[in-house]
This record gives sequence, structure tokens and C-alpha cells, in this order.
Amino acid sequence: MAVGPGIQETLLPISGVSIGVACAGIKKENHRDLVVFEIAPGSSVGAVFTQNAFCAAPVHVAKANIASGQETRFLVINTGNANAGTGKQGIEDAQETCSRLAGKRSVNPEQVLPFSTGVIGEYLPMSSLISGIPDALATLTTDNWTEAATGIMTTDTREKGASRQFEFEDETITVTGISKGSGMIKPNMATMLAFIATDAPVTQELMQKITAIAAEKSFNRITVDSDTSTNDACVAIATGKANVTRVEDESNPLYGYLLKTVTEVMLSLAQQIIRDGEGAKKFISVQVNHSDNSENALKIAYAVAESPLFKTAMTASDANWGRILMAVGKSGVAELDVDNIDVYLGDVQIVENGQRCKTYTEAAGAAVVAEEEILVRIELNRGDVSETVWTSDLSYEYIKINAEYRS
Amino acid sequence: MAVGPGIQETLLPISGVSIGVACAGIKKENHRDLVVFEIAPGSSVGAVFTQNAFCAAPVHVAKANIASGQETRFLVINTGNANAGTGKQGIEDAQETCSRLAGKRSVNPEQVLPFSTGVIGEYLPMSSLISGIPDALATLTTDNWTEAATGIMTTDTREKGASRQFEFEDETITVTGISKGSGMIKPNMATMLAFIATDAPVTQELMQKITAIAAEKSFNRITVDSDTSTNDACVAIATGKANVTRVEDESNPLYGYLLKTVTEVMLSLAQQIIRDGEGAKKFISVQVNHSDNSENALKIAYAVAESPLFKTAMTASDANWGRILMAVGKSGVAELDVDNIDVYLGDVQIVENGQRCKTYTEAAGAAVVAEEEILVRIELNRGDVSETVWTSDLSYEYIKINAEYRS
Repeated sequence: MAVGPGIQETLLPISGVSIGVACAGIKKENHRDLVVFEIAPGSSVGAVFTQNAFCAAPVHVAKANIASGQETRFLVINTGNANAGTGKQGIEDAQETCSRLAGKRSVNPEQVLPFSTGVIGEYLPMSSLISGIPDALATLTTDNWTEAATGIMTTDTREKGASRQFEFEDETITVTGISKGSGMIKPNMATMLAFIATDAPVTQELMQKITAIAAEKSFNRITVDSDTSTNDACVAIATGKANVTRVEDESNPLYGYLLKTVTEVMLSLAQQIIRDGEGAKKFISVQVNHSDNSENALKIAYAVAESPLFKTAMTASDANWGRILMAVGKSGVAELDVDNIDVYLGDVQIVENGQRCKTYTEAAGAAVVAEEEILVRIELNRGDVSETVWTSDLSYEYIKINAEYRS
Repeated sequence: MAVGPGIQETLLPISGVSIGVACAGIKKENHRDLVVFEIAPGSSVGAVFTQNAFCAAPVHVAKANIASGQETRFLVINTGNANAGTGKQGIEDAQETCSRLAGKRSVNPEQVLPFSTGVIGEYLPMSSLISGIPDALATLTTDNWTEAATGIMTTDTREKGASRQFEFEDETITVTGISKGSGMIKPNMATMLAFIATDAPVTQELMQKITAIAAEKSFNRITVDSDTSTNDACVAIATGKANVTRVEDESNPLYGYLLKTVTEVMLSLAQQIIRDGEGAKKFISVQVNHSDNSENALKIAYAVAESPLFKTAMTASDANWGRILMAVGKSGVAELDVDNIDVYLGDVQIVENGQRCKTYTEAAGAAVVAEEEILVRIELNRGDVSETVWTSDLSYEYIKINAEYRS
């Protein structure tokens, strides 16, 4: 089950990034579950990680390897096992994964970043994983983005990817990314697994900045079930293969173009995660306008987007707008003057000055929520800041998927 | 669907409190939906209300009537319609309800407190409600507690009530209470509707204090779905009919006994709400021990109790303990050292120092979560404060009840 169409575009290759995919038998046989990225020397790599205190072993190791200051040359990603809650053994397994790959390609283990996704609390099946590494390396090619998108899926029902291009100094700059994620989705200053690359030339410092800003406005604006994964990670690679002036500071106009385009790609990936949210039948945008600040707008948007009662009304296509008011009211925003609040479902005004709008009819509201894509717009009338959060409905299928996840 | 047995005790009458119940046809015909409490002159009344910013019209009117300083003599409660999101008309309807009842009994409208529960966003059917008031008054008797418990139900599948007695100065003091609530349950400094009475003599000021403290430790420790109602209210009445020394300050030992007993009654009512939580098959206690403070213990307890993934694992009797770690980790507690954390399911240790306990077996965990009543115990090892939160599982039936609520 998923909302709307899947990937609509060809995933364009990025010069300087090769991808290999293998079936290592980590959880199931004959199933793509191991992906390796090879990154050309001289590339810049930005990364953000989960803020969950119980972050997984590969997150610890990836952060440490980045902190070593050595140039990142490989990413190794397995699905089927999160290597989280696995303590010292988990750290050693993630480090050994890096060492085995590094040994095959004559780089240092610190030049490899490991990523895992899947069930929490079980040790990595190391012999399967290690035996898959040569298979993945044997398939390295720049054309494997779609195969990699399938190779990182867990409960996802379809692969997620996006490409954008723009012209700069008579060169075509490309940005391509893939992501996975369907449940345990409320990225916190990070994301589910996502890998983005561009051929633009950018310093390490500015690529990190672009990654953080773009993730904040995309992956950090989605929620399926308010649960934050232990394994979230988002990596953005700039290979510099495009023949344009390198971005050394923010005054280079390429910085702005690139930030905009990376944000667009990440937002597409984030929204694809919501469209494929566990059990999703609806794609819901919760937009809060005219807030005094971003924090209050987000508090209200998340209160609505995470309310089980609102999400259940949506799955039933029931325009039960009292649940929207309830959620706005419980958001904890200080000095919220409800008599100033207007609420719209699509273009239909349901609440005017905190109470039922006189022109509202059940039929008009029902027509909006019958659609697959639903916009809830909340006007606070206390400032000029807007924020939007994207979410899915809470359906029988969500329960089914998660009740049966380990069976 | 509900967990365990219903009311286990006879609901004992309280001298000075009479209750009338009627079928006013507010939402359905021939269905108890209107309850009136008559409170003897000289009683003290404590009350706490929802912190939801969109609080309902009757909450506004009840607060204003209490603030008028006039002695509360009647409560009037309807189910089937929450009178929330109804603006000025809603306020006028709640005021008129008080006036109509006051006119029949020669008291001032400010001496009547109104309460409503049911669907949000529709106007009260005033002619039905008003016509029911004489019927309710005609049935006033001290023996109607169980009938009143059924007369305030919405999606509840059974009535909720509790009585406790203790001896003081050779007199028997009684505390009896009823409550309703099943979904939209995360009371915030208040509760769902609950009405408690005692024959102990207590000043107004101290009865308010007892109400607030007892509600904090009972109704404010439960969550079904993290959604806070617009209509929550908890009222505790002390009629003073028992022939013992009146509580004028906290040094009277009756203050301590009464606080303890009111808290016990409220905790029983709160736990009955969880046992009857929408779609509940499990009664889950999330206990956090050895925290540095109450706030952090509650953050972690609620993060677990409200995690859709944890609640879905429980509905499936799946000991998927990785989801407990995930929820602890996302709680936002500062400087959480996960390597110090131990987690138990019942008496079975699943996590030791932040990782899978070596003695843990899936079979042992499965046996605990197969039960209807499940204890999750989280040891933080950073202080000596404990807090417990009670919750239910997230089942197919929760979705069904809330998807079909208005149909």
C-alpha cells in the first residue's frame, strides 16, 4: 500500500560515484541487501545522524570515522539487521565490516562509513555480510542508483529516488539521491537512510552545511508514527567532477543553486517516504501559517500530524475536524488565542475565529478528505512564519505490518 | 473489548450527595445521557480541568462559576455532545443549561457546574437537554452512583467506579468516585470526566489541594493515545456529613488519610479507564526507576507508553524489545547514558547496561507479553526517583472504533 505513483524520473549517474549491489543473505536469501558506494578521491562528504540516544553501532563507527579526518572513500550499507542494541560486539562488527572492505581496496578502515537498517537487537550475521562484500564490489558501476534504492529497503513497498539538474558556467550540474524508510519515521535532526550525490565541486565544510540545512527542511519535516529510528543517517557527496569554479565560500552563486537543488532532491525523497509510510492510504500536508516563530508552527503541525485520532479520521476519509482543533489545543504553544485561529481542509474553510465556520458543510469537508492527497491549513494570525509537516494516515495496515514485523 | 474485570466493588453512597439520571435523547433515544449531582449546602468542592487551549464551552463556564465564589450546589453532565469548538453559542448553551436547572431548584446559575462529553464541533441539542432536566431531578437519590457511571459513558464499554472507607475518630469515612474515558486519553494536569465525593469535612482550599495532588498522581499518569481531550474535568466533593473534626489545616491527620484515600480512588478510576482504553487487549505499566528527577522519568515513561511501534508490538504479544530501547532513546532526556540502562519485561531482564542481556531468551520474553497485564521496568541508575505511567496497546479495534466514530 502506498499513495500515488512511485519514482517518476530516471536516476541520473553522478561522475565520481560507483555503486555495487549484492545478495548477501543477511535476513533472506536471493534478496538485494548489501550496497557499496565508491567515492572518487577529492570528494566532499556531508552527513547527519539520528539524535536517538540509543544510536546504533554503525552510527557510532561512521561518526568516529568521519571525525578521524580521513577522506571518506566508501559507504557500506546492509538491510535486514540494524546492529542496534548490540553493545561492544555491535561496534566490533561494524568496524570489522569497514576493515574487510578497506582491505580489498587498499584504503584505511576509517575511510569506510558503515550503515545498517532492519531489526533491532540482533547481532550482524558477519559471515554472510563479509562474503557479500566481493560480490558488491564486482558490480560497481555509476548506473546502479535504482538497484541501490531497492537494496536498502526494509518494510518499504517501493524504491525511492530523485534526480535534478541545473546549468552553471555552461556545465550541467546533477544531483541524485536515494532513500529508504516507511515506519519508525520521525527523523530528528537527521533522517532515515538517504544517500545523495552531486558532481558539483564544494569544500567539505560547505557540503556539511548544505547537508544539514537541506535535511532540516526535508527529512526533519516528516513523521509517519512519531518514532525516531536508532539508525537514521543522511549522507551527501560532492565529487567535484563538473568543470566549474569550486565552491569555497557562500558568495559563489553555485552555493545557493546547489543548496536549493539538494533541498529539492531531499524533499522529494522525504515525501516519497511518507507516500510509502507503513499502511499509508493518504498523503497529508499539515501547513501552519502566520505563526510568531518556527518553533510554535512546528509544535502545532506535529501535534496534528502525530495525533492518532486525527490520523484515524483521515484513514476513514472522515472530516472530523474537531480532532484537528483538539490537536492544535494540546500542542503546548504558550498564550495560544484560539479565537484567532482559522482552519482549512484544502480550500474549504472549516473553522473561523476558533469555531465552526458558518459556510462550512459536511459535504464540502467530505469531498476534500475523500482524496488521496489532503492539505490541512492552520492560520494562527500571530506573525508571518510558515512551516509544513508531511505525514500519512494511521490504518489497519499499519497495525498489521508492525504486529507481524518479526513473525 | 477491555482488559480484566469491570467494577469489583459496590459503589457506596455519600451522605450529602444525591444523583439523578435521565434519558434526554441527546444523541440516541432511550439511552442514559444526562446526570445531575445535588450537593448539600456547606460542602467543599475541588476541581481541575483540561489544559487543552481549545477547551470546551462547559469548561469555560464551570471555571467562571467556581471563580464567582458562590457555593457549588449542582453538577449537570451530558454525554453525546462535547459542546466544544462551538464558540459564543456554545457558551450561551452551557450557561442556559445552568440557568434552567438553577430555576427549578431556586439556586443561582453560578451554583451549577456544567460538563459535556461526546462529539466535538456540534451545537448542544438544547430542547432535548432542557426537557431531560426535570426527569433527572425527579430521580435524585444517594444510591445512583452506578447509574451515573453508565450515564456519562461515550465509547466506554463499561462503567467505572471505586469506593474506599477508613476509620477516623470512631467514624467511618467514605470516598466514592466514578469516571468515564476510553479514547482521546492523555489528561494534562486534569483528567477525563471524573466525579469523586467524600463525607469528610474539609475546607474548600484544602479540598482543592487534595484534588490537584491526587489527580496528578492518577489521571495525569495515564495515556491511551496521547491525545488530550477538550473537555477533561475532575471534581471532588467533600460534604462534611461525617461527625469528625473538620480539616482546617494539613496538621490534622485526617488530611493525610483523606489525600491517600482520594488518590487510591482516583488511581483505581484512572486504571479502569486504561483497562477500557479503546480497543485495549493489554494493560501495560511502564515503570521508570532510579531517575535523577520526576520530569526525566516521565519523559521516558511516556516515550515508551506512547510509541505506536511499542504499542503495536504489545497488541501482537511480540517481545520486540528493540522498540523499547528506541523509545527510551528518543525521549529527549539530556545526557542519557544508555550504557547504564537495564530493562525488564515483568521479572525477565532483557537489557543489561544498554545491550541485550546474556541470560535473555525470546521464550522468556514471549511468556511475559502473552499475559493481559504487562510490566515494563526501566532502570536508569542515575538517582532515586520513580514514576509509573499506565497505557493500553494499539490494536486493530482502536482504528476501527475511531475510523467509524461518527458513522
